[in-house]
Amino acid sequence: MAKKDDSGEGFVTEITPRSQDFSRWYTDVVRRAELADYSPVKGCMVIRPYGYAAWELIQQGLDRRIKATGHVNAYFPLLIPQSLLVKEAEHVEGFAPQVAWVTRGGTEELEEPLAIRPTSEAIIGTMYARWVQSWRDLPILINQWANIVRWEKVTRLFLRTTEFLWQEGHTAHETEEEAERETLTILDLYKEFCETELAMPVVAGRKSDAEKFAGAARTYSIEALMGDGRALQAGTSHNLGQNFAKAFNIQFQARDKTLQYIWGTSWGITTRLIGGVIMTHGDESGLIFPPRIAPYQVVIVPIPRGNWQETVLPRAQAIKTDLAAHGIRVMLDDRDVYSPGWKFSEWELRGVPLRLEIGPKDIEKAQVMLVRRDTREKLATPLEGLAARVAQVLTEIQQTLFDRALKFRDEHTTRTDSWDEFKAIMEGRPGFVIAPWCGTSACEAEIKAETQATTRNVPLDSPQATGSCVKCGKPATTLVYFAKAY
Amino acid sequence: MAKKDDSGEGFVTEITPRSQDFSRWYTDVVRRAELADYSPVKGCMVIRPYGYAAWELIQQGLDRRIKATGHVNAYFPLLIPQSLLVKEAEHVEGFAPQVAWVTRGGTEELEEPLAIRPTSEAIIGTMYARWVQSWRDLPILINQWANIVRWEKVTRLFLRTTEFLWQEGHTAHETEEEAERETLTILDLYKEFCETELAMPVVAGRKSDAEKFAGAARTYSIEALMGDGRALQAGTSHNLGQNFAKAFNIQFQARDKTLQYIWGTSWGITTRLIGGVIMTHGDESGLIFPPRIAPYQVVIVPIPRGNWQETVLPRAQAIKTDLAAHGIRVMLDDRDVYSPGWKFSEWELRGVPLRLEIGPKDIEKAQVMLVRRDTREKLATPLEGLAARVAQVLTEIQQTLFDRALKFRDEHTTRTDSWDEFKAIMEGRPGFVIAPWCGTSACEAEIKAETQATTRNVPLDSPQATGSCVKCGKPATTLVYFAKAY
Repeated sequence: MAKKDDSGEGFVTEITPRSQDFSRWYTDVVRRAELADYSPVKGCMVIRPYGYAAWELIQQGLDRRIKATGHVNAYFPLLIPQSLLVKEAEHVEGFAPQVAWVTRGGTEELEEPLAIRPTSEAIIGTMYARWVQSWRDLPILINQWANIVRWEKVTRLFLRTTEFLWQEGHTAHETEEEAERETLTILDLYKEFCETELAMPVVAGRKSDAEKFAGAARTYSIEALMGDGRALQAGTSHNLGQNFAKAFNIQFQARDKTLQYIWGTSWGITTRLIGGVIMTHGDESGLIFPPRIAPYQVVIVPIPRGNWQETVLPRAQAIKTDLAAHGIRVMLDDRDVYSPGWKFSEWELRGVPLRLEIGPKDIEKAQVMLVRRDTREKLATPLEGLAARVAQVLTEIQQTLFDRALKFRDEHTTRTDSWDEFKAIMEGRPGFVIAPWCGTSACEAEIKAETQATTRNVPLDSPQATGSCVKCGKPATTLVYFAKAY
Repeated sequence: MAKKDDSGEGFVTEITPRSQDFSRWYTDVVRRAELADYSPVKGCMVIRPYGYAAWELIQQGLDRRIKATGHVNAYFPLLIPQSLLVKEAEHVEGFAPQVAWVTRGGTEELEEPLAIRPTSEAIIGTMYARWVQSWRDLPILINQWANIVRWEKVTRLFLRTTEFLWQEGHTAHETEEEAERETLTILDLYKEFCETELAMPVVAGRKSDAEKFAGAARTYSIEALMGDGRALQAGTSHNLGQNFAKAFNIQFQARDKTLQYIWGTSWGITTRLIGGVIMTHGDESGLIFPPRIAPYQVVIVPIPRGNWQETVLPRAQAIKTDLAAHGIRVMLDDRDVYSPGWKFSEWELRGVPLRLEIGPKDIEKAQVMLVRRDTREKLATPLEGLAARVAQVLTEIQQTLFDRALKFRDEHTTRTDSWDEFKAIMEGRPGFVIAPWCGTSACEAEIKAETQATTRNVPLDSPQATGSCVKCGKPATTLVYFAKAY
C-alpha cells in the first residue's frame, strides 16, 4: 500500500549483518523487532509495546532498588521558566543549546519563555528552597520518573533522541560527606543493577572535568563496552556540592543554629539502556534479551503435525498456564498462518531467551525440547518438573550472557603507556584503553581530536598511575579508561 | 526565614473548616498534608512524595486491570507537529485554545510549531496508519502513561492544572460493534476501579453532544459526587467512530480484500482522581485515604511513658515488621520531638486509615489500641493475631467509606420534572438532579446559563424518560444527570 511509505522510512524485512555494518544492524534490529520506531517529529521516537515492556521491567528493577535505599518518588513540572534555568551559570551554558522553548500558551505569547526540562535541577532546587527550613528536614531523598527533551540533530533510536525517558534522583544533605556517600551509593546501585538485571558489566569511575555534568562538583559514571568496541555511558551520579544550593538559595538552620547551604546530588539512568542491552548481547540473528528483563522469557512453539490442534495445542496451553503460575513470562505462538521455522527465526530475532518446542513425538515421550537463544543448545526436557527446570535454564542464560560480555570486554581492554599502541588500537579494533594520564583538559582534547577517543572515567578500584601521561609524557596523575563512545 | 515567602503562597498551618469554605478546605488539606504544591510555573503543580505514593497505587491498580483486559503499554512523543494536530477539524477546534507551542529548539526557530500533547490521538493515529496493513494487525490495544499539557488560566491542585498525569488508551478495531464494545468495556472497568479501589461510587453514562470529546462519535463518562454536592467527571471513554481513521488515513485490507478505515476508541483517567478522593472522603480533621490506595495504611504511635525506648519501642518495631511482612503499608512514627497528641492529629490530617497506639499498659495486657480514622472507633486488640485483625479492619474501613459516600450521593440525588424544584436545588444544597430532557443543545445551554448546572451524563442503566423536558416542556428523549461540576 503506497500510503505506508510517507514516513520516508520503509519497513525492515531483512536485518543487515552485524559483522558488516554494526550501526545499520542495530537500527534494523530495533525496528524489525518492533522495539521502537521513528516518529513524524524529527529526533523523537515511539517506544513500541515490545520495547516498552522491557522498559517497564527495567523500571521495576531500578525503582525497587531506589526505594530500598530510602528514596521516595515525586513529580515536578515539565516546564521551567527561563529565569530559573539561567541561575546556575555552568548549568545553563551546558544545556542552553539543547533546550526546546515554549513561547506560546493557547492564544497568548508568553512574557517569559518556558524551557521543556532538559533535566530538573533548576525546578527541583527552587522547590527545595521552599521546603527546607531546618536540619530536621534533611536529607531529602527524592526520585522522579519523567520524560526529558534535549534538542538533537541526529537521531539514533534509544541512544540519542530529542525526547527520552529516565529517572532522575535529586537529594539534599546536611554535610559534604553525606552527599558524597549518597553519590557513590547510587553509583554502586547502578552498577549492581546493570550487572544483575541487564547482564551488562560496567566500569565505575569518576569523570574528567571536561566530561562532567554542567554544574556538578564531581560526576561519576558507569561505562559499558558495546559489541562494536565503543563505550556507552550507562548511568551518571553527580555530587553537586553547594553549586545549586547557592544558585537557588537552598538554606537550612544547622544544628549549631547557623544558616547553611545544603549539599546536593543528582543521578539518572535513561531509556538508552535498552540500546545498551541490544548492543551488548545481540548477534547475527538479532536481539538476545537477558531473561530478567525479557518481555517474554519463553516462547512456546507447537509443532503442527497430525491433529495437533486436538493433541499438541491443549498440552502447549497447559504448559503455558503452568509456567505463568510459576512467575515465568511466557507467550504461546499458536498462529496457524506461520510455519514453525518462520516462528523460530522470528522469536530469535526478537531475542526471547528460551524457546520451547512441543510436537506429537514429544508428547509420546512426555518431554519438550528447550532451545537456548544464547548457545542454541537443544535440551530434551521431561514434562515432569518442567517449570523448575525452565527457571533454572533462564538463570543459566542470564549468567552466560554476563560472562560472555565480561569476556568480550576483557579481550577488548588494553593497558598501555605507549601512544603509538593507543593510536593503533583506536584505528583498528577499538575497545577500552587504560592508560596513565596527566589529568589536563588540554591533553584530553588533543587525544580526542587525534583519535576520537574520549576519557570515559577514572576507575574507582585502581586509579593510581605511575610513569608518564600516554600522550604528553608529563607525570601521570591517574589511570583513566579511554574509548570511542556513543 | 524571609526567603520562604517568595512563592507568594505561605505555609499552611491550620486548615480552613470544611463546613465554612469547602474550596479553601480542599486546598489547605492538599498543601498541609503535603500531597501537592504550587510551582513557579503558573498552572503547574508539584506532586509531592505523599501524593505521588497514592498516585503510584492508583497506577498499579489501574494498570493491572488494563493489562488483564488484553492491552499493552507503549510510549509516543510529547511533541506533535501543528500540521498533524489540525487534521481532524473538530479535534483542533476543541484543543487549539489550550495548546502550549514549542517554537524554538536550541538556537533555531522552528519552521513548524510543535504542540505539547494536549491528548495523543493525532500522533498515535499517525503511527497506526503506518503500522496497520491488514485485518490481521487488528485490534491494536495500546495504553500510554504520560504527562499532558493544557493551558489553564485558573489552577486548582489536582483538579485543574496546566500539566497533569494520566493514562490514555488508544485502540483500533475492524468493526464498529467491536469499537463500541471496547468503549463500554473500559467504562465498566473505570467504574469498577473507582468503586473498588477509591471507594468512590460513580454514575456511568453517555455524554451529551455538547459535552463530548472533540472529535469523538460518542463519549461516555463516569461521574462522582463530591462532598460539597458538585460533580466530578472521573473518567471518560470515547468511541471515535472513523473520524480519526479518515483524518489520519488509518486503513486496512479487510477479510473481503476491500480497503477499510479502522474504528477507533480512546479513554483516560488522570491525577484529578486524587482530588476526587479527597473531596469524597475528607472531613473537618482533614483527609481520609481509602486503605487500598493509602500510602500508609497504618501508623504506629508509641506512647512515651517510663523507659519506653527500651520497652515500647522494640515492641512497636516488631509490630511494624510483622504488619509489613503481611503486606500492610505501615509507618512507625518514633520521632521524639513530637507528642503523641500532636502525632494523632497530624496523621488524622494526612488521612491514614488506621492508627495503632501502644504504651506500657498495653504491653502489660498484651494488646494494642486501634483507632479507626473513619469512625474514630477505638478497638482494644490482642497482640496475638494482630496482622490478620488489622487487615480485616482495613477491609471494613474501605467498605464503610464506600457505603458512606453512596449514602451521601443518594441523599443528594433528586429526581424531578419540575423546573422550579430544579432551580431551587441548584441554588441551595446542590447535588445530582435526574430529570427528563429534550436532548437539544440549545435547551442544555439555557439550563447552564440559568443555573450553572450542566448535563453530566445519560445513565446507562435507566435512560428512558417519559413526559416533558424539565426546562422547555417539549417531549423528553432521555433522563439525564445534571449537576454543577468541577
